[in-house]
Amino acid sequence: MAKVPQKLQIIPLGGLGEIGKNMTVVRVDDEILVIDAGLMFPDDDMLGIDLVIPDISYLLENRDIIKAIVLTHGHEDHIGALPYVLKQLNVPVYGTKLTLGILEGRLKEKNVDASGLIPVKPGDIINLGCFSVGFIRVSHSIPDAVGLSIKTPVGTIVHTGDFKMDYTPVDGKMTDFRRFSELGNRGVLLLMSDSTNAERPGHTPSERTVGVAFDKVFHNAKNRIIIATFSSNVHRIQQAIDTACQYKRKVAVLGRSMINVVNISLELGYLTVPEGVLIDIDEINNYPMSQVVIVTTGSQGEPLSALTRMSMSDHRKVGIVPGDTVIISATPIPGNEKLVSRTIDNLLKQGAEVIYEKSKGIHVSGHASQEELKLMYNLIHPRFFMPVHGEYRHLIKHAKLVQDLGMPKHNIFISDNGQILEFTRDKGTVAGKVTAGNVLIDGLGVGDVGNIVLRDRRQLSQDGILIIVVTMDKDQGCVAAGPDIVSRGFVYVRESEALMDEAKEKVKTALEKCEENNITEWATIKANIRDALGRYLYEKTRRRPMILPIIMEI
Amino acid sequence: MAKVPQKLQIIPLGGLGEIGKNMTVVRVDDEILVIDAGLMFPDDDMLGIDLVIPDISYLLENRDIIKAIVLTHGHEDHIGALPYVLKQLNVPVYGTKLTLGILEGRLKEKNVDASGLIPVKPGDIINLGCFSVGFIRVSHSIPDAVGLSIKTPVGTIVHTGDFKMDYTPVDGKMTDFRRFSELGNRGVLLLMSDSTNAERPGHTPSERTVGVAFDKVFHNAKNRIIIATFSSNVHRIQQAIDTACQYKRKVAVLGRSMINVVNISLELGYLTVPEGVLIDIDEINNYPMSQVVIVTTGSQGEPLSALTRMSMSDHRKVGIVPGDTVIISATPIPGNEKLVSRTIDNLLKQGAEVIYEKSKGIHVSGHASQEELKLMYNLIHPRFFMPVHGEYRHLIKHAKLVQDLGMPKHNIFISDNGQILEFTRDKGTVAGKVTAGNVLIDGLGVGDVGNIVLRDRRQLSQDGILIIVVTMDKDQGCVAAGPDIVSRGFVYVRESEALMDEAKEKVKTALEKCEENNITEWATIKANIRDALGRYLYEKTRRRPMILPIIMEI
Repeated sequence: MAKVPQKLQIIPLGGLGEIGKNMTVVRVDDEILVIDAGLMFPDDDMLGIDLVIPDISYLLENRDIIKAIVLTHGHEDHIGALPYVLKQLNVPVYGTKLTLGILEGRLKEKNVDASGLIPVKPGDIINLGCFSVGFIRVSHSIPDAVGLSIKTPVGTIVHTGDFKMDYTPVDGKMTDFRRFSELGNRGVLLLMSDSTNAERPGHTPSERTVGVAFDKVFHNAKNRIIIATFSSNVHRIQQAIDTACQYKRKVAVLGRSMINVVNISLELGYLTVPEGVLIDIDEINNYPMSQVVIVTTGSQGEPLSALTRMSMSDHRKVGIVPGDTVIISATPIPGNEKLVSRTIDNLLKQGAEVIYEKSKGIHVSGHASQEELKLMYNLIHPRFFMPVHGEYRHLIKHAKLVQDLGMPKHNIFISDNGQILEFTRDKGTVAGKVTAGNVLIDGLGVGDVGNIVLRDRRQLSQDGILIIVVTMDKDQGCVAAGPDIVSRGFVYVRESEALMDEAKEKVKTALEKCEENNITEWATIKANIRDALGRYLYEKTRRRPMILPIIMEI
Repeated sequence: MAKVPQKLQIIPLGGLGEIGKNMTVVRVDDEILVIDAGLMFPDDDMLGIDLVIPDISYLLENRDIIKAIVLTHGHEDHIGALPYVLKQLNVPVYGTKLTLGILEGRLKEKNVDASGLIPVKPGDIINLGCFSVGFIRVSHSIPDAVGLSIKTPVGTIVHTGDFKMDYTPVDGKMTDFRRFSELGNRGVLLLMSDSTNAERPGHTPSERTVGVAFDKVFHNAKNRIIIATFSSNVHRIQQAIDTACQYKRKVAVLGRSMINVVNISLELGYLTVPEGVLIDIDEINNYPMSQVVIVTTGSQGEPLSALTRMSMSDHRKVGIVPGDTVIISATPIPGNEKLVSRTIDNLLKQGAEVIYEKSKGIHVSGHASQEELKLMYNLIHPRFFMPVHGEYRHLIKHAKLVQDLGMPKHNIFISDNGQILEFTRDKGTVAGKVTAGNVLIDGLGVGDVGNIVLRDRRQLSQDGILIIVVTMDKDQGCVAAGPDIVSRGFVYVRESEALMDEAKEKVKTALEKCEENNITEWATIKANIRDALGRYLYEKTRRRPMILPIIMEI
């Protein structure tokens, strides 16, 4: 009996052409596996939006054939959408211990059932329908990160997860090259690889080099040392603690997310701290300044974070003391550069010494640079290649890298969110699109803020609003009260009385004209008010506030 | 007759602790000289603001003793406030030919009298009251830039302007080291030096290296070449044109500000273009793609610029053709990183090859790095030192640099906008403050948008507005019509009817309560509505829209 050749479909729902909201569908006939479910932080023009998650309409339409969600690691851009996804989909979620530990906390915060979380270890292989999923240890800027091997009837996929090649990892656990090599030898159909640092030549330095840099700083610091880093970077925190121990300093942890991650990590064994080293923030004044280290949030200049508050003398418990040494152990994520600069300036103004330059070695990336990407490619030597986890230029660069290594251009696929890539053993093609995009989350609202609301917020943010209220007498067909004009965000009214008085006159004139011409339809009256007032205000101020006529009827 | 020792006062009104709105007052007794009058681009939280200029209250209070404004060069952050300043102050303005040429255009745009502009040449010395001002050629990213020597009865000040040390300048005109050295030998009281690149070790590469980089790109480019750069960077444009000529390509200029500057530069002789090389943008299709170069605005991803429009297929005259080579000959100004990335991605999506990495050598800074700053300091070897033109960390770094060269810490002054530094021949002290700060310009309004308006715009931008209108019957003392609720920027109303209905009920209840308790004062009624509705909406949505109750009376 001739069998219809099975097709493997790869459908990204997020993470391509953007950094954030990673989520990929792997489908063979009637079985779906989902890799990751992340969130993305809003762009500057997404006013008032808290976060962005992938549109999962496709998954909801196919809910019955989803076998599981498998997670590569515990960063927000890989797990952050799950509290929302799991409210709508009841599927098992597989991840490593730390990944699920962090996820559990998020689910609890949002009152979502955490019972479908199934822990796996690097090296495990799980059968999920026609998929045989292997979890392969990789080094990243959070412990317990894995890449995936997904064996399907059509062929084997390797997904690197977020990775780097670190030959001296802080916890002694290296990227499992041998497993990747073994898979490559057996034959891999498709490699999906992390493009974040594809623009960077060379090799990302080992996490251990930061420990060396810390040592140099600690050696010279006379007073307190404050280290700001990403709360998820447990190896960085480990090195901070190790160096503190070397220099016989106590360590206090500051910032809610930092405290959370440190606690989970201690509980699950990802952080090792000798007895008596960790102290509460309230105890720091019990020790000489030369014996204190504070590990804190705020490395991105986040307005409500501990370090930012300290820099503005706005933290309830800790301030900056002249002579403090502050290490910004991170680089600004694109978009955060001004926030970070501002924090650095504020810390300097308070008399702190601030160490933030890349050249000081106090931060390294968690993503592979070009030489490591070439190594991964060569270990796997796949049939087909798909760069993932990057903005367009990262994907392009990664594709070019791999092309230079000999992969034919037609076997390289630069895909897009929602695009279906279909593979057989021999061929890969673009095979259509599914619904994909952004779901905006504002407060408790999921997806209720769309383009219209955002457009209105933009206009309001630029030039404010003028509200014109008129009460019309229905029977008499004329104005009973008003027009009254109220403005917000437009001008400082006390200084602009003449302008507002004149504006009122323009509205009166427009209303009179409507009466003269027997215009009674509200929509038309409002349009006339809007036109007359808009023209006048633009002429006088070159601004275009929102103009909102409201008609009350008595 | 014992004479009271004269005091030299240096009072920055802008440019310290920020990059932008440079303006410095030099005062000896009853004579004032002003150095530069620049604008600053608004921060992200200055919603709807077009630009920021210095608060010149101090100058208006002392208008009768201002001798002149002297300009260092034609960048916006040194001349951009003049259209506003000259509307309020009638003082002569001295500057080099190109500086005044650019300024004239700005003044014309704003209908400001340009008759008080007096051109000077590098090397000139002008006597202005007790000040003897020398204009000293420096290299910068715009031609005709100068530093200043200001001889006063107290001593000589040297102000570097914005500068670098370029030993192979494109126009053959070098920073006048010899003049700086001569001044240093005669004795300089105070050096005020450009701190922009004080964090960068080494030496800023010569502008000429960009020409070399251009050559490499032109050598490999098969089709059209598009070069985006700052419109004021005439030397960069010159090299683009020179390289185009070498490769027998025609050059079209795109973008209003680019066309303006090119025209002024051609007119005044700062740009040399052989006959027939420059073509109109409408003519480019008359030539094979391999013979076309387009020099354009948009290197900062500015939304309305030519290159950004082209990247979005939104330009009336030019689109991107697959195979185009685009050179982004600039680095993102802090804050613009995401805009630039977006443009690069869009260009790539359209099939262009984009060259943007710093390592490709297609851009160099116009500001001195550490070795050049040390050289300037050593040439001048002043009594006192004041780092200028930088954010706080730049000023700190520059101060540290100079301290390491031997200047005693107490002779180094890190000042602030509005702070008075007072010098005698032997001593420098902080001597109080004057009014200084930001004046925000929005459309035609100068300073009429202040903190309250901005605060309102911020709230509107995050969560929108709800307007509740009630018509009250004055005589009956009860509600005659309403409450009606209108919202903008809050939720998509069509999907949130239940929420809005419930909100209306909350308002009705609040109004009834007021009636029951005989509350007739509008302020109290409004406060009750605001509280009840605010609480309800936050509970349901975790959002805090502006709530604006309006009461009409009949």
